[in-house]
Amino acid sequence: MLTPTTADKFSFGLWTVGWQGRDPFGDATRPELDAVEAVHRLAELGAYGLTFHDDDLFPFHATAQERRRRIDRFRQALAETGLVVPMVTTNLTAHPVFKDGGFTSNDRSVRRFALRKVLRNVELAAELGAQTYVLWGGREGAEYDSAKDVLAALDRYRESLDVLTQFVTDRGYDLRFAIEPKPNEPRGDILLPTVGHALAFITTLEHPDLVGVNPEVGHEQMAGLNFAHGIAQALWQGKLFHIDLNGQRGIKYDQDLVFGHGDLFNSFALVDLLEHGGVDGGPTYDGPRHFDYKPSRTEDIGGVWDSAAANMRNYLLLKERTAAFRADPEVRQALSDSGVLDLRVPTLSPGESAQDLLSDPESTGFDPDKAGERGYGFVRLNQLALEHLMGRRGK
Amino acid sequence: MLTPTTADKFSFGLWTVGWQGRDPFGDATRPELDAVEAVHRLAELGAYGLTFHDDDLFPFHATAQERRRRIDRFRQALAETGLVVPMVTTNLTAHPVFKDGGFTSNDRSVRRFALRKVLRNVELAAELGAQTYVLWGGREGAEYDSAKDVLAALDRYRESLDVLTQFVTDRGYDLRFAIEPKPNEPRGDILLPTVGHALAFITTLEHPDLVGVNPEVGHEQMAGLNFAHGIAQALWQGKLFHIDLNGQRGIKYDQDLVFGHGDLFNSFALVDLLEHGGVDGGPTYDGPRHFDYKPSRTEDIGGVWDSAAANMRNYLLLKERTAAFRADPEVRQALSDSGVLDLRVPTLSPGESAQDLLSDPESTGFDPDKAGERGYGFVRLNQLALEHLMGRRGK
Amino acid sequence: MLTPTTADKFSFGLWTVGWQGRDPFGDATRPELDAVEAVHRLAELGAYGLTFHDDDLFPFHATAQERRRRIDRFRQALAETGLVVPMVTTNLTAHPVFKDGGFTSNDRSVRRFALRKVLRNVELAAELGAQTYVLWGGREGAEYDSAKDVLAALDRYRESLDVLTQFVTDRGYDLRFAIEPKPNEPRGDILLPTVGHALAFITTLEHPDLVGVNPEVGHEQMAGLNFAHGIAQALWQGKLFHIDLNGQRGIKYDQDLVFGHGDLFNSFALVDLLEHGGVDGGPTYDGPRHFDYKPSRTEDIGGVWDSAAANMRNYLLLKERTAAFRADPEVRQALSDSGVLDLRVPTLSPGESAQDLLSDPESTGFDPDKAGERGYGFVRLNQLALEHLMGRRGK
Amino acid sequence: MLTPTTADKFSFGLWTVGWQGRDPFGDATRPELDAVEAVHRLAELGAYGLTFHDDDLFPFHATAQERRRRIDRFRQALAETGLVVPMVTTNLTAHPVFKDGGFTSNDRSVRRFALRKVLRNVELAAELGAQTYVLWGGREGAEYDSAKDVLAALDRYRESLDVLTQFVTDRGYDLRFAIEPKPNEPRGDILLPTVGHALAFITTLEHPDLVGVNPEVGHEQMAGLNFAHGIAQALWQGKLFHIDLNGQRGIKYDQDLVFGHGDLFNSFALVDLLEHGGVDGGPTYDGPRHFDYKPSRTEDIGGVWDSAAANMRNYLLLKERTAAFRADPEVRQALSDSGVLDLRVPTLSPGESAQDLLSDPESTGFDPDKAGERGYGFVRLNQLALEHLMGRRGK
Repeated sequence: MLTPTTADKFSFGLWTVGWQGRDPFGDATRPELDAVEAVHRLAELGAYGLTFHDDDLFPFHATAQERRRRIDRFRQALAETGLVVPMVTTNLTAHPVFKDGGFTSNDRSVRRFALRKVLRNVELAAELGAQTYVLWGGREGAEYDSAKDVLAALDRYRESLDVLTQFVTDRGYDLRFAIEPKPNEPRGDILLPTVGHALAFITTLEHPDLVGVNPEVGHEQMAGLNFAHGIAQALWQGKLFHIDLNGQRGIKYDQDLVFGHGDLFNSFALVDLLEHGGVDGGPTYDGPRHFDYKPSRTEDIGGVWDSAAANMRNYLLLKERTAAFRADPEVRQALSDSGVLDLRVPTLSPGESAQDLLSDPESTGFDPDKAGERGYGFVRLNQLALEHLMGRRGK
Repeated sequence: MLTPTTADKFSFGLWTVGWQGRDPFGDATRPELDAVEAVHRLAELGAYGLTFHDDDLFPFHATAQERRRRIDRFRQALAETGLVVPMVTTNLTAHPVFKDGGFTSNDRSVRRFALRKVLRNVELAAELGAQTYVLWGGREGAEYDSAKDVLAALDRYRESLDVLTQFVTDRGYDLRFAIEPKPNEPRGDILLPTVGHALAFITTLEHPDLVGVNPEVGHEQMAGLNFAHGIAQALWQGKLFHIDLNGQRGIKYDQDLVFGHGDLFNSFALVDLLEHGGVDGGPTYDGPRHFDYKPSRTEDIGGVWDSAAANMRNYLLLKERTAAFRADPEVRQALSDSGVLDLRVPTLSPGESAQDLLSDPESTGFDPDKAGERGYGFVRLNQLALEHLMGRRGK
Repeated sequence: MLTPTTADKFSFGLWTVGWQGRDPFGDATRPELDAVEAVHRLAELGAYGLTFHDDDLFPFHATAQERRRRIDRFRQALAETGLVVPMVTTNLTAHPVFKDGGFTSNDRSVRRFALRKVLRNVELAAELGAQTYVLWGGREGAEYDSAKDVLAALDRYRESLDVLTQFVTDRGYDLRFAIEPKPNEPRGDILLPTVGHALAFITTLEHPDLVGVNPEVGHEQMAGLNFAHGIAQALWQGKLFHIDLNGQRGIKYDQDLVFGHGDLFNSFALVDLLEHGGVDGGPTYDGPRHFDYKPSRTEDIGGVWDSAAANMRNYLLLKERTAAFRADPEVRQALSDSGVLDLRVPTLSPGESAQDLLSDPESTGFDPDKAGERGYGFVRLNQLALEHLMGRRGK
Repeated sequence: MLTPTTADKFSFGLWTVGWQGRDPFGDATRPELDAVEAVHRLAELGAYGLTFHDDDLFPFHATAQERRRRIDRFRQALAETGLVVPMVTTNLTAHPVFKDGGFTSNDRSVRRFALRKVLRNVELAAELGAQTYVLWGGREGAEYDSAKDVLAALDRYRESLDVLTQFVTDRGYDLRFAIEPKPNEPRGDILLPTVGHALAFITTLEHPDLVGVNPEVGHEQMAGLNFAHGIAQALWQGKLFHIDLNGQRGIKYDQDLVFGHGDLFNSFALVDLLEHGGVDGGPTYDGPRHFDYKPSRTEDIGGVWDSAAANMRNYLLLKERTAAFRADPEVRQALSDSGVLDLRVPTLSPGESAQDLLSDPESTGFDPDKAGERGYGFVRLNQLALEHLMGRRGK
């Protein structure tokens, strides 16, 4: 039951298993990983998909010929293994030209270059049959408040998205975009820092239906936010187009640990939400379960594959546990006792207006002091969740 | 120049100067403050407005007669001083009945009571001529992930806002609502935790034009977010309906310090944005400069008024410094050198399409390595801002 | 196996189950709890000890007679149930007189009063047979950097500890002191903010042997620190005199959740350390397992006792899981593969000096590039820990 | 007055101005900087000292000949400019061999190699006349709780320090060690995470007098701690051997901004403490004012030198402002009114014992309710500090 299959839709970024361990204070600890080898190994481990930045697949300065050669080799490996490419993205962070951003660089020639780099890779994404194109604006931001005209930057960000959505529309590509928020690192403050800011921004676009979010566990937790809550709002607004699963241990630098190796309890709530729509059903997520993590720098290539496998196993383990949680009659009773299930009932009765509510005799007679004595039993409910998470009910 | 006048539109919450110093570990250190005295003292200090929660003005259990008596006394003091009431809000946090929330309590009878409490106070707000009605959902949230069906909670939140906006429309009130986000405290996680989440939520409402945000300095900073950036996005989306100014020193409990006594440098950027639309002009904010702070528990009533005066003085001081910053030709030159002023220029030329961009010979010939060598001069620019903030240019 | 017995040494603060739910934004949600009832209920649940602040047991302004009456009632309940009082502490936080601190208040008369309040309660602690006297300096700190002469404050803090240790020495009390660090809340910054700062301070005292630390899970986590690491250093320095167990979800206000309802994975490491001295044995802790938590404000008295029971159950559950972790041969092998067990081996050989090391031919021939290729297998080891925590090994 | 001279003792790490801008998501944006050029430029700007890691000066794999050649070139530049080397340190972070630490690596051969690397560089430090040898254990830590036996790691850490102090004693070097704490990054949790933990650790060493701390502004602020408070405790314990000045904007990745470009208000308190011993005199710091910062990745070489100059200018600017603050009679009066100056008075009278205090009639008659009404005037005092910081007193 904990063996991944393609039906589980597990996907990995090529840059994850391919990360060589270079960090702000240290050099690479692992050799380069051939994309073709990554395809084969991930397929063996049970993944169904692989994703990439343009620069992961071919060098930044690759000639057209070299680019094509690399793509073809990669496609052949995909064909051999059955692995798909559900998502593609662009590297607008590594090269010095992007040091002040891509879409929102203070330098217009850089903005134009960034947009072209994305457009060219969108063409490749379409060629490979990807459904989602992720945009992480890691360099769109500033360290200093006076160094970035945020109002203008949001104009440029919007302009870029409008250009991109028009492009896929004109080309007839079946491709949607997903913005990946992050609060900081590598910039001091990044624009669209949380799921909320990205969702709000999307509503201002020309083709808002073509743009959603790609939240990452650790990115929201770097702002101390509850990841499952953020995902719930994204689902509620119909905008969870993609998801990046990993682990983070609190407010600090971006750790990109294995999924489950961070805040385990919140991961339980997350899987429950993705798989079952939360405590009493609701919209769920059926896209790829995409792992955007980094195998720790202390690991050799064996540790890389162990960590890749651990991501999938932990998701399946949590899926198993959340299913048991939801099937447990005692849990159902506790949810009911706590009023969790009552929240689906509208506050007003059908046809009732504010004026009706104001003059409703039952409401007028409501005794708040008495109602304030109600015990909600949330601790007991949480304890049931914990015991399901730990596989230790009863006794 | 640092003497506040009504033209500065400084307003205070009655609960701010009236805070008695009760905190999670300590009892009140100051006696109750009469609302009428607050009106007179704030007017003397140069404020133009006073705001309140219903429970600040009359007790939770007040009879209709007692309620009216308190309101009338208060109105008389307003009339005597010329102070206005630009904003009103509701206390849905203090009474035990709201321990699991108001609009999103798991208990429907509580939700109905909360909505009635707000509606009745909206009527009072309209009577007093307020333009803005603030909604801070401090108890709308959870400590435990399984204790709140967030999807359902957002439905109920939306339902409540839709009822309220329909109510003011039906009544013909000239009143808009402003949601005040906060990430946590008093709940472990609060719904709509940041400016971004609130902006996104608003777009799902029936009358989105009637609802904006009321961001508070400390609340965004409790999530490690750049407050000036958040305000910029709110302005950019035309949703900065009101603002709560105060001070916070990092990610910790909600400190509610005097404005300027927290992150001073970011306050400089904020005032620059509110007053001048940021580094190169843009939408500004012309509503009340509302202080939502707490005079420290160590202060007696003299310290209360000192702290009230300090809020206004610091705003004016920062306004003076940001004006000098913007008037300095060297700053103008530095902004230009840094490309800050170029960000207003669209990335595409008029009429240019993505396809045009892809085939533009000038863009195709762009040398990213060369462009990557550009020095943006952001440190120099920031140093100029710092020296203006500190009033020490030259030499 | 998960049923607590007195051998487990579980103790509770009277102020924990007795917390009425008053928070910075809300009134009490539960009635006062009689200390005698608390004694009986905790005894029934399997606790072995109860602890208290003076003000928990008798009112701040109690007459000598009233004080004695309350103490006697309490002692009788202890006698009836067999519950012991392993620790006592003083409330130097609630009354307005302590608003700028107790031992380090800027007002000398307050400092003297604080010291007297502690001395009187130390006498009571001795009378009740307590072994540990906890000092939490929640008000020893400042909101503003110029408002506290920290150098002088540390002098006064030291003076107070020297007076107290001399007092118990003179009286012949068998009582040791334990300082409880906290970084902030209710003050903006608290002196001795972490386990480390307290350990360092202790070494400057006249009777350092009589003073240790009482770390609290949430307090260290409010600074983003690894609690198990802090406990390890306290154990290593022989200074873990007492411990406060609870749950916290990241860097925010002090949540005081049930133990296990916060960072579950780190709790596993903590219990492993307390029970077994960590990954390969070492000094352990045999004092009380003291729960310093708050039953959530949403709970009624039934929820209070559910939450008390949950603390103990979770400790036992984690104890069970850490025992299995340590007994698993695969874990043992993984620890060995990862070099965890080799860290006990001194770096120098017996009798070897720095000079010897510099001229050691084997060391001179060491190939760092080759050694840098070693994979440590930490992800696999962590995955084993996770699977033991979740009770799901194999398959 | 704001022109730095050698009397100001400003020093820089070679790795600061030499930082090429490589970060976790991006490549180098600046070419390598020759150490000799750095010496000349820093001397011109007014610095008095330069510091370095071994690997900054000569490559990791340098032959003895190459190493000597580089050292000699460097010494010649020092001789030409008069710049001194007050501090030296070792790079135990960059090479893959240190991926699990240096002194506390799980691999003993690595521990031995690390110790040899330090010893060899200690010899060089002595040769160059450095007084302080800094040890930053950036890789001494773990991502996973079971991957590091912290008790054993502290043993190994202590062993290493004991070896080093014995070595300099045997050699007769006039050199002291300074431990630089950091809570996390590049490891998930670093051992000795704060100033407090390092101070505590030092007391367990064989030669504690030879070891102090080298606190860095941003490192303490990454744990949300008040840097000036930490420095005060280090001074109070006589252990401030060196200091790293820079800027950080809250709890996030290590930003290493220019000094003053982070938390400006706390920098004011820090400079006041270093220069004047705080609010009423006390131990001060007379060692190098060492800048450990990174010129932002967006800057070219011109921006590098601008940023170097800004560090020194800001220190001098703050020094000027703190001097005015201390010279202002209104400030003196406010400090007195707030009781700040009274904290130097011992709590007990000369010869008074705890027993005396308990029976002191004046203390017995103390009225806490009355004393609790005192207003401390801290907000006013803080406002005075702010106005001095901003250079805007009066009017």
